[in-house]
Amino acid sequence: MNDRPTQTETALSVPAPIRASLDAIESSLIREVSDIGMAMGGVTPLWFGESDITSPDFVRDAAKASLDEGETFYSSNAGIAPLRAALARYESGLRGRQIDEERVVITISGMAAIMLAMETFVGAGDNAIVHTPIWPNCIQTVRIMGAEARLIELERGPDGWTLDLDALFAMADERTRAIFVNSPSNPTGWTMSGEDQARLLEFARARGIWIIADEVYTRISYEAPRAPSFLDIAQPEDPLVVVNSFSKNWCMTGWRLGWMVAPASLVPTITKLVEFNYSCIPVFVQRAGIAAIEQGEDFVAETLALYRRNRDLVYQRLAGIDGVHMANPPGAFYAFIAVDGMTDSLAAAKRILTDQKVGLAPGSAFGPGGEGHLRLCFALQSDKLSGALDRLAKSLEAGVV
Amino acid sequence: MNDRPTQTETALSVPAPIRASLDAIESSLIREVSDIGMAMGGVTPLWFGESDITSPDFVRDAAKASLDEGETFYSSNAGIAPLRAALARYESGLRGRQIDEERVVITISGMAAIMLAMETFVGAGDNAIVHTPIWPNCIQTVRIMGAEARLIELERGPDGWTLDLDALFAMADERTRAIFVNSPSNPTGWTMSGEDQARLLEFARARGIWIIADEVYTRISYEAPRAPSFLDIAQPEDPLVVVNSFSKNWCMTGWRLGWMVAPASLVPTITKLVEFNYSCIPVFVQRAGIAAIEQGEDFVAETLALYRRNRDLVYQRLAGIDGVHMANPPGAFYAFIAVDGMTDSLAAAKRILTDQKVGLAPGSAFGPGGEGHLRLCFALQSDKLSGALDRLAKSLEAGVV
Repeated sequence: MNDRPTQTETALSVPAPIRASLDAIESSLIREVSDIGMAMGGVTPLWFGESDITSPDFVRDAAKASLDEGETFYSSNAGIAPLRAALARYESGLRGRQIDEERVVITISGMAAIMLAMETFVGAGDNAIVHTPIWPNCIQTVRIMGAEARLIELERGPDGWTLDLDALFAMADERTRAIFVNSPSNPTGWTMSGEDQARLLEFARARGIWIIADEVYTRISYEAPRAPSFLDIAQPEDPLVVVNSFSKNWCMTGWRLGWMVAPASLVPTITKLVEFNYSCIPVFVQRAGIAAIEQGEDFVAETLALYRRNRDLVYQRLAGIDGVHMANPPGAFYAFIAVDGMTDSLAAAKRILTDQKVGLAPGSAFGPGGEGHLRLCFALQSDKLSGALDRLAKSLEAGVV
Repeated sequence: MNDRPTQTETALSVPAPIRASLDAIESSLIREVSDIGMAMGGVTPLWFGESDITSPDFVRDAAKASLDEGETFYSSNAGIAPLRAALARYESGLRGRQIDEERVVITISGMAAIMLAMETFVGAGDNAIVHTPIWPNCIQTVRIMGAEARLIELERGPDGWTLDLDALFAMADERTRAIFVNSPSNPTGWTMSGEDQARLLEFARARGIWIIADEVYTRISYEAPRAPSFLDIAQPEDPLVVVNSFSKNWCMTGWRLGWMVAPASLVPTITKLVEFNYSCIPVFVQRAGIAAIEQGEDFVAETLALYRRNRDLVYQRLAGIDGVHMANPPGAFYAFIAVDGMTDSLAAAKRILTDQKVGLAPGSAFGPGGEGHLRLCFALQSDKLSGALDRLAKSLEAGVV
């Protein structure tokens, strides 16, 4: 309360409540570390899922040209037609089969696409199954809608992470409306096999459950030209929504531009919800997306080569440290590092930040199965990464826990 | 289904359902008219709430400079600090009292701010009170959250529209979590008096109910320098969220940039929800917002003068037509025109579109009390408006119904 005179001064009689279900939604623990680190200076930030590479010139130039053209007005809910067409061609080329333009909806980030999917499928009394450890936002969108997030833990073995599909199937009941799959996965790099995708799709068809497939890392794949995708095997009207984003492949995190591929019959519903969530996306941002798709293949290849070098660098430098366990991830651009005896990854991340000026994300941010780990994003220039690894290794060798 | 061979061919066994509550959410009837008109060519579009003026150069230049600087990375959930500070200064100046920066959250459109507010306050079993006729999006956000929208009709008199506050109070029960007020109002121009705002605020305090005040037209006011605002009278911790946008005053509809002023204690919750809805807003868009605030006052004054001339032009040309009823709106940039005997405003809007190439929004799009009206947005260059009014007058004089 301030002390200036106002027209109405009556005290608040009854506190106005916010939704009780929001209490279960945690603020990001990643932000808890980064907020400290950003105030420090001199930190090598490996906490977010973001490269340190500025968006390429041809992307920025396309946006500037659009602004010069005066494209500053409302646009269509589902995205401008040339971008939907460009993405249909792109997806069709990537999958080797026709993906129709009418199935593509442009969204104001991959995050927004996930939220729109949850608004479409889940409400109070419903549930959605989500594997963990996972980017926490995938869980929280379920809870925002008042639905239950049923969490199933991936298992960590010496060769990487695995998902027990039968255990997942056993969690589904008659109120299960969606199964969320993030593959390649943030933070573990776990990548679902094509065989498992086919089994899950069969299950979803038989039970009438939607698959929400977050495939934003589909092209950041180290053991195949791209990771298996549900779009490789699904029929157009299967209960499947695939989420993607310009953020990771084209270094466009700050642009807020993503897309969904959905059954054509679902697109009018999604489009309706776009109107009531944010209505449309700046045209000049969408023009940048067209440039990324049409001119970006060399850039994508170069950054993938960088990530591959970095992945190997991280593994070489850290995997041999006593008490440290990690598999070389098959996809995405994170190392998810297990540290023996570490029971408070948030405290450990803060200590490494303070001691070594290396910014990591605490494993506890990623839900069940995440504690005991630290996530390191290696999507940056190799020389910067190398220096940070030197400092981080000191902490790990000294036993950070 | 396509006929190309795929790895999995099993037929869909059980249809995967979408949320039943989405059935109650209509697609936009405005879009139903505009979709036809956009395919026609030669139409004067008065259907959206949008000026035909391109965003000013200083706004576009600020975005381009930011892109040149390489500001293409993630930014903070609540918006960049310089824009929050600029808006705190702007709001403080407008209201003549201190509005702290920590109370300002930047949002990816005014629409997104409304959706965030609904996510914060209402879920299944709750209700929110909304006056009609109103921009339909305000109602649909309540329904997306699975809550009940309780609608109260404004009353149309010869001098304009009025709201019976006592009737509104009588609609509230123990599950009423929010009261939505859009003043000046789209589509009616109805503007709540300061006295009524004080009464409503008292009620909200006493009953512990949030006011969501959509004040995007607060400066498009013809009878006072600006419309009365809840921010004139509220205490910082009152149950009040005020939504605003860059779209209307600075001709920035396509940029998707808005803001909220909320109690400081609520900001962490809103910020948390931003993370899970769209995470952040492009920095280059936010830089454009700073330019609008810091350099835009002359532009705002000029466009307001244009809208005032246009308002009077519409009234002079249409109000005298037999069977046509309209008051000169005290705020916003719409004429909401009642036509005697018109019972299907959607059909009438389509006929006017076809016959006269004038694109209007059907009154039925705006909920109870809207049927029998046509909405005309007069935020365009006067010569274009004048020609459209000539043609529209022909339809109205001939009896369009």
